[in-house]
Amino acid sequence: MNLKNIITNNHLEAHFKKGYFGIEKEGLRTDEKGNLAMTDHPKAFGSRSHHPYVQTDFSEAQLELVTPPQETLAHQYEWLKALHDVVNQTIAEDEFLWPFSMANILPEEAWIPIIKVNDQSEMRYREKLAEKYGKKKQMISGVHFNFSFTTELLDLINKHSDSDTTRSEWVNDIYLKMSRNFFRYQWILTYLFGASPVSHPSLLDSSGIGPVRSLRNSKYGYHNTFSKNVSYESIENYIRDIEELVEKEILYEEREYYGSSRLRGTGKNVRHLLNNGTRYVELRSFDLNPFNPMGFSYEQSLFVHAFLLTMVWMDEDNRDEDIKRGLEMNAETSLENPYSYSKFKEEGLSIIEKVRETSQELALNEEYTPAIDKATHLFHHPEETLSAKVMDKLKSNYSYIELGNELGKKHKQLSMEKPFLLSGFESMEMSTQLLMFDALQLGIKTEVLDANDQFLAFDYKGKKEYVRNGNMTSKDSYISHWIMANKTVTKKLLRKNNFSVPDGSEFSDLEEAENYYDIATEKAFVIKPKSTNYGVGITIFKQKPKKADYLEALNFAFKEDDSILIEEYIEGSEYRFFVLNGKVEAVLFREPANIVGDGKHSVEELINIKNQHPYRGEKHRAPLAKINIGELEAMMLKEQGYTFDSIIDKDKKVYLRENSNISTGGDPIDVTDDMHASYKVVAEEIARTLDVKVTGLDLIIPELFRPSSKNNKGYSVIEANFNPAMNMHAYVEKGKGRRLSMKVLEMLYPNVELS
Amino acid sequence: MNLKNIITNNHLEAHFKKGYFGIEKEGLRTDEKGNLAMTDHPKAFGSRSHHPYVQTDFSEAQLELVTPPQETLAHQYEWLKALHDVVNQTIAEDEFLWPFSMANILPEEAWIPIIKVNDQSEMRYREKLAEKYGKKKQMISGVHFNFSFTTELLDLINKHSDSDTTRSEWVNDIYLKMSRNFFRYQWILTYLFGASPVSHPSLLDSSGIGPVRSLRNSKYGYHNTFSKNVSYESIENYIRDIEELVEKEILYEEREYYGSSRLRGTGKNVRHLLNNGTRYVELRSFDLNPFNPMGFSYEQSLFVHAFLLTMVWMDEDNRDEDIKRGLEMNAETSLENPYSYSKFKEEGLSIIEKVRETSQELALNEEYTPAIDKATHLFHHPEETLSAKVMDKLKSNYSYIELGNELGKKHKQLSMEKPFLLSGFESMEMSTQLLMFDALQLGIKTEVLDANDQFLAFDYKGKKEYVRNGNMTSKDSYISHWIMANKTVTKKLLRKNNFSVPDGSEFSDLEEAENYYDIATEKAFVIKPKSTNYGVGITIFKQKPKKADYLEALNFAFKEDDSILIEEYIEGSEYRFFVLNGKVEAVLFREPANIVGDGKHSVEELINIKNQHPYRGEKHRAPLAKINIGELEAMMLKEQGYTFDSIIDKDKKVYLRENSNISTGGDPIDVTDDMHASYKVVAEEIARTLDVKVTGLDLIIPELFRPSSKNNKGYSVIEANFNPAMNMHAYVEKGKGRRLSMKVLEMLYPNVELS
Repeated sequence: MNLKNIITNNHLEAHFKKGYFGIEKEGLRTDEKGNLAMTDHPKAFGSRSHHPYVQTDFSEAQLELVTPPQETLAHQYEWLKALHDVVNQTIAEDEFLWPFSMANILPEEAWIPIIKVNDQSEMRYREKLAEKYGKKKQMISGVHFNFSFTTELLDLINKHSDSDTTRSEWVNDIYLKMSRNFFRYQWILTYLFGASPVSHPSLLDSSGIGPVRSLRNSKYGYHNTFSKNVSYESIENYIRDIEELVEKEILYEEREYYGSSRLRGTGKNVRHLLNNGTRYVELRSFDLNPFNPMGFSYEQSLFVHAFLLTMVWMDEDNRDEDIKRGLEMNAETSLENPYSYSKFKEEGLSIIEKVRETSQELALNEEYTPAIDKATHLFHHPEETLSAKVMDKLKSNYSYIELGNELGKKHKQLSMEKPFLLSGFESMEMSTQLLMFDALQLGIKTEVLDANDQFLAFDYKGKKEYVRNGNMTSKDSYISHWIMANKTVTKKLLRKNNFSVPDGSEFSDLEEAENYYDIATEKAFVIKPKSTNYGVGITIFKQKPKKADYLEALNFAFKEDDSILIEEYIEGSEYRFFVLNGKVEAVLFREPANIVGDGKHSVEELINIKNQHPYRGEKHRAPLAKINIGELEAMMLKEQGYTFDSIIDKDKKVYLRENSNISTGGDPIDVTDDMHASYKVVAEEIARTLDVKVTGLDLIIPELFRPSSKNNKGYSVIEANFNPAMNMHAYVEKGKGRRLSMKVLEMLYPNVELS
Repeated sequence: MNLKNIITNNHLEAHFKKGYFGIEKEGLRTDEKGNLAMTDHPKAFGSRSHHPYVQTDFSEAQLELVTPPQETLAHQYEWLKALHDVVNQTIAEDEFLWPFSMANILPEEAWIPIIKVNDQSEMRYREKLAEKYGKKKQMISGVHFNFSFTTELLDLINKHSDSDTTRSEWVNDIYLKMSRNFFRYQWILTYLFGASPVSHPSLLDSSGIGPVRSLRNSKYGYHNTFSKNVSYESIENYIRDIEELVEKEILYEEREYYGSSRLRGTGKNVRHLLNNGTRYVELRSFDLNPFNPMGFSYEQSLFVHAFLLTMVWMDEDNRDEDIKRGLEMNAETSLENPYSYSKFKEEGLSIIEKVRETSQELALNEEYTPAIDKATHLFHHPEETLSAKVMDKLKSNYSYIELGNELGKKHKQLSMEKPFLLSGFESMEMSTQLLMFDALQLGIKTEVLDANDQFLAFDYKGKKEYVRNGNMTSKDSYISHWIMANKTVTKKLLRKNNFSVPDGSEFSDLEEAENYYDIATEKAFVIKPKSTNYGVGITIFKQKPKKADYLEALNFAFKEDDSILIEEYIEGSEYRFFVLNGKVEAVLFREPANIVGDGKHSVEELINIKNQHPYRGEKHRAPLAKINIGELEAMMLKEQGYTFDSIIDKDKKVYLRENSNISTGGDPIDVTDDMHASYKVVAEEIARTLDVKVTGLDLIIPELFRPSSKNNKGYSVIEANFNPAMNMHAYVEKGKGRRLSMKVLEMLYPNVELS
């Protein structure tokens, strides 16, 4: 059968250019000075034997970051970024990931730590590899690019194919053709992306070799040692060859076969490929890109994908002898001087033209074009290849180790700057990013079901949980949400259960609310819309207002909602109690936007200084907001006799806002440990009464040091919030940050293994 | 202390005119012919000893409808209406509530059934009453009006009072004053509302008495038999007198005291009034209003409230001797001829003027004015009083029993016409009305927490449950709701669990959706907005469309939502599976609006005939919608070669709509018992997978008679709906109606007692 015909005749191009994409990226933990880290794998990663995303390969210090298969390259890359954030923030403060494929400063062979796991057979396997290849060789790291077509495409081809071959047969045929052609032309990828020109002598003395394109791809890299190549001409040959290598004890296990393209099926044995077909191909020839924080750029992924499609799309089909030729060309290319033109430039350029044609025939989207153009360009400009660029750096007074240290630390720094954002998933709410970070760290399988809806699916050893907006979970009932969403209902319920709530009434009729004037004005009171949550439409009257002002406030509130509340106003500070799973996990006081004088700087200068803190930034991009230099702030200053230019006395606090919202520059101050226990008990009882596992309770407490008692409650519940914010507790201006997202996971998975 | 001064000086009028209002209304179950029903109390009312709303008084056939205390008269009246609906629909089809205070046709004394309850002391007490007063006297029914001021008012008065009296003391004083003045002037209410001019001889031979205003209030009514009146001059006197009557065995128990105004406190003993104060007063002198389906009109309630306020507000304060005078005047009034002027007309008019003044001073709302005007009018027009109006009817060829039968049956009919609406609560969604009906019937305490939000609170023997929109309960988790709210997430989840869902993709980008053309058009497909639920923005393509039509459909869908779905279209009938608590409780097929010819009537006539069915009506006011005679219907007819004037052959079905929505006149057809079990199993498995207790699943089943199997699923899940409609299952065009609201209650209260 002719795949290309089936696809073009049946208009399956749209399916053909889809796929599943995954990346496995190895990297060495490195200490501040560039030595291989001798520390243990971080405990925070939870159970190592089970972790789906962060594993250790040969050595305890050799991390392997594994993205789950994704439907687009963009998602694949998001995951790669996110995993780097998680790893960089989890490894020791003074460690970083080595950016080169060729190792950092290795200790004596004996001192290189093999992974510490409980599985004895895994340990034995690695000891045997150490014996055979030497431990040091194992420390060479790289990137594996995993690819498969979609099931839909394969189903459709199967449907439209009229040949007698079984589905498994021709699926294997597709991936075998891709592999054969890949082997033939992989030297092009080595030319473009090779990035291991030199090595530190502790791994390999490369001084006699001279700078090359890719030591890792060359004979100095880590390869199998047998002479006969595995056949890719048929699946039977492939299986037979690998099985034979194991039978003859040339390989310890099938997985020791390190071919640049490996067919992966279901189960560990290659024999399964025969009946079940290939699930995906694993392409293993990529050096770490030291200039990219993830070791591989999105542009590289685009080119590789287009290249792989071309290897299938092209009419040309190579045989085992061509594979042999390809391997030789790759070996030769990898040892070329980085600055020199490729010996096979013409072939390279012609294949890239084929890639371009394929991408046009398939109407690949426009992202691919610059990646293909760049490849052409690099064949004309070897001095711009990765390996040449590494050499540029090394020539300008850097040692290999210095350069590795600098790049590695810089890459790590990117993950450290904004710990409240998870790279690749910044479009989601911060609370969802925090939660996802924690899940990735713990090794809880995570799927973004719907990014717009902040919808995550988790799976830990088969136990599935779903979370929306950071803390909406299966643990809370549908109705408790609705109880909290309705302020009047919440109040009725709390009052009935003898909690202290402000007096008040709900009105949906303006006239009735007008007639309530006499009752309302008996005490200080507040008029507010029933169901908005953001402080809009609220008027507070601390003294009895004129009827006209009262009416205006009513209209103001009715603008926001059909129903309004007129409620007793309770003087005192408002505290946010975050109750989770029956326990107060955090108590927060929110202080209005303010600066503290130093006797030198103006108000405006002090605001600018305060705003520079990395926690302060744009809405939804930072946990705290910048203080605005605007009209409201000017008015507030004026009331206190200041302008933006005033110099404020040392240690004098000046407020710039009346309201304490974090979103208008307010300071979150953690007071969890200071809050009197009696109020925490009250908050926990309220949560129990509302039958809710996650809630943010706003309590007004006028006299902090007078504990709450049955007859003298000492607090008033203002609001019970479902889906309460978590970030403001995590990143506070003063006090201790509280990682509530981790508590959410602990609630969902009380038995998660932490080591 | 002077209550009026405290109120006016502190502007507490707004509180003073509020209150809690309740009504207890007795009524005899009556058979078709006007005889006292000899049947047992309906089992459907659940546990009688516990039922808060529907009780039996003396006799098994004497129902007592008890409204819970309400904050407004309007709410009180709503409840009274609702309870009448429940009672009327629950008692036997051939029974109704007797509309008069004086009984229906009573059997021999010995045959009147005393209530059948398990409590032996209750039985004994009634046997003693039967012995003392005769059973027949007990069959006289009436209305009790319960009233109290609000706690807020009493708290505020307490705060502003500077006297030494305790709160309980002066609260008792207020209600004692009200009672004293009430006794003095209750004759006015008897004049206005007396409605028992005659009696059937089986209870009392009234032929020698002549028509009167109120036999019940007269010496022929059911009263205590002792001569000395209970004192209302102080709480001590009141308690002492009642206790003395019991000590001397003149009364069996304190509750046997039948004064027209009784002070009710906490606990059964009047002695508690001393320390705890009066909770409310029970005013017992009201005859059933036979012309009102509830036995008491809203206008009567308004007047009684204004009257009671006046009894407190007036400076005049009566003593025990005035009470005596008042009782005499009441006895005299009750035996006056209905058509005659009151002997005390001038006093009556002057007191009504006082009521009017009070209502003006308190600024009672305008509803009260006509009620007060009417009272004045009736003093000038005795022929318009209730008793006179009863006599008018009796004079025009009706016998007392005929009139009672006619009125009683007419009243009952009102509750039977629209069983899908709960009178008094018609503003809520029908599903909430159904649910509330069922709860009231079962005796589950119900509170409307928020009518706009369809929010009910239930309490059965202390177990509280909350329900929103008829079936959103504590049994469903927060997250399962959100899973179903997101079509993409639902599909991902179901597909992962090997359920059959249509292929498809979500798009938030128009261009991406455009590029999907080739993939989309491989099969019949549908383009729809992601999250609307009402069929808006949907286009179905059964054949491959032109690109332009495809683009138009995309734009159409994108108008409704930021995200759209392009999904495989599955041919076949769509069935709604209502799954509740793990079980398919109903399966519905929705047939597009249609009529069936009879060879005589035109299409338009047939539509009109079909539309007359009481189930068809306005949106949210009837379970089925009327078929529209509009453009779309005309077009649909035209396609079939008809017009609205066509006469359709007998038994030929003609469709008027393509879509099957009930809201456009479609027919709900119950197929629960016909649906193959294999599909029910699938639906139950889906609900389990979504971890949801209440869901409406839409399954397309192309070949009904081919059962679903693992390899040949035979269905496709189109949608999983949270908060699925329940009415369309209850009131069907064909098949058996399914009362799902009752199933919701059974889920919430699996141990509810049903007898």
